Amino acid sequence: MRNFKLVLTYDGSRYRGWQRLGGGENTIQAKLEHVASRMLDKETEVIGSGRTDAGVHALGQVANFHGETSLTPEEILAYLRRYLPEDIGVLSVEEVPDRFHSRLSAVEKTYEYRIWNDPAPCVFQRKYVWRMEEPLDLSAMKRAAKDLVGEHDFTSFCGNRQFKKSPVRTVSAIEITRRGGEVVLRFTGSGFLHHMVRILTGTLVEAGLHRRDAGQMPAVLAARDRQAAGITAPPCGLCLVEVRYG
Amino acid sequence: MRNFKLVLTYDGSRYRGWQRLGGGENTIQAKLEHVASRMLDKETEVIGSGRTDAGVHALGQVANFHGETSLTPEEILAYLRRYLPEDIGVLSVEEVPDRFHSRLSAVEKTYEYRIWNDPAPCVFQRKYVWRMEEPLDLSAMKRAAKDLVGEHDFTSFCGNRQFKKSPVRTVSAIEITRRGGEVVLRFTGSGFLHHMVRILTGTLVEAGLHRRDAGQMPAVLAARDRQAAGITAPPCGLCLVEVRYG
Repeated sequence: MRNFKLVLTYDGSRYRGWQRLGGGENTIQAKLEHVASRMLDKETEVIGSGRTDAGVHALGQVANFHGETSLTPEEILAYLRRYLPEDIGVLSVEEVPDRFHSRLSAVEKTYEYRIWNDPAPCVFQRKYVWRMEEPLDLSAMKRAAKDLVGEHDFTSFCGNRQFKKSPVRTVSAIEITRRGGEVVLRFTGSGFLHHMVRILTGTLVEAGLHRRDAGQMPAVLAARDRQAAGITAPPCGLCLVEVRYG
Repeated sequence: MRNFKLVLTYDGSRYRGWQRLGGGENTIQAKLEHVASRMLDKETEVIGSGRTDAGVHALGQVANFHGETSLTPEEILAYLRRYLPEDIGVLSVEEVPDRFHSRLSAVEKTYEYRIWNDPAPCVFQRKYVWRMEEPLDLSAMKRAAKDLVGEHDFTSFCGNRQFKKSPVRTVSAIEITRRGGEVVLRFTGSGFLHHMVRILTGTLVEAGLHRRDAGQMPAVLAARDRQAAGITAPPCGLCLVEVRYG
């Protein structure tokens, strides 16, 4: 059995997220498995580095699958590009050691959340941003973000109440920048809980709109209560940018 | 009666083009007229600088309308932005002299045609480019383009057989550049015939694929026959970038 690593980009707008279990056939994983299974003439599981929610996009999702085949990585790349829908793109295919597992081997991930923070129209990017006309105070957002960086119990920022595993995660960086009419929040960390990036974004936006004090993040973390944090930002603005391996 | 000039951007994907006549309610013009008429409480015609075909986009279409109103241009801008669909954006509203006519006063227009000329995926721009994997020879395209610049009878590049007016137009520049995986054709001229930019693009692409000799453009022009030119490039890659006035 050979093991192949894929780097993927997709427009999540019309999908029910990455994961087939719970999402069914209209998921990124199901589309990939369908094409990979036909290519290898055998039911093939495609393992992702993690789920992305319905409507969330990717510029650098990583996945892998095992298969017995004489195809080269270049031939696999060409086959996948030919048969996948236009909104799922394969950036690269590489043969990797058998022990490589796109989720378990992942060391760090980067997500970007894009907010269109301008009254001007945003016609061509409209499906990839959260539109917000009221101006955001970036210095307040940065002050709040500083207290979220580090190793914390992120229970307050977890959308799944039945979550059984450790809610401790390490966020190594939150960078907030303005690019023209756009405000971009870039999150890097060892891993993220269910909806965590979107709840972090919603909470930072509330600080940026002065609806929440920028200094209260330590208290929000300490509460270990989803109610203490802000809203869950909509999925369309979120994009999985990169997954790094050791 | 006051006269207002609008600069517009739109994603033409889901519209039957600019013009209501022939295109009906699902046109850019009809959407604008609907909102403007409600704003002014009176049937209002919105005059465009020219039609764009079904599926063609705009970054800088210009239109104007006349109306009796005490609204300021800023208030009109805010009203239009509030009620137009997300894929039609108003960049600016300005009061102009009564004699200003967005079509008749236009001096020059620039269109860009975008071709994604790379096997790599093009997920987020897929609705705004013409995908073509076979590599284009840009030097052949530029050689062919040189013979199309200037004042010519462009009958061979006109999609409308019943065209009654003069088929002479002046193309002041055709710039062809590669930006990463993309090839961009930028056309500037005093005016363009029906489908002219798309037929020019289709013909230049045939030269770029060596299916047509780059030196034959003078003969294609001289033929004054649509059959002498190349295919009509699909609308999705075309964008009206700018309309200039004296």
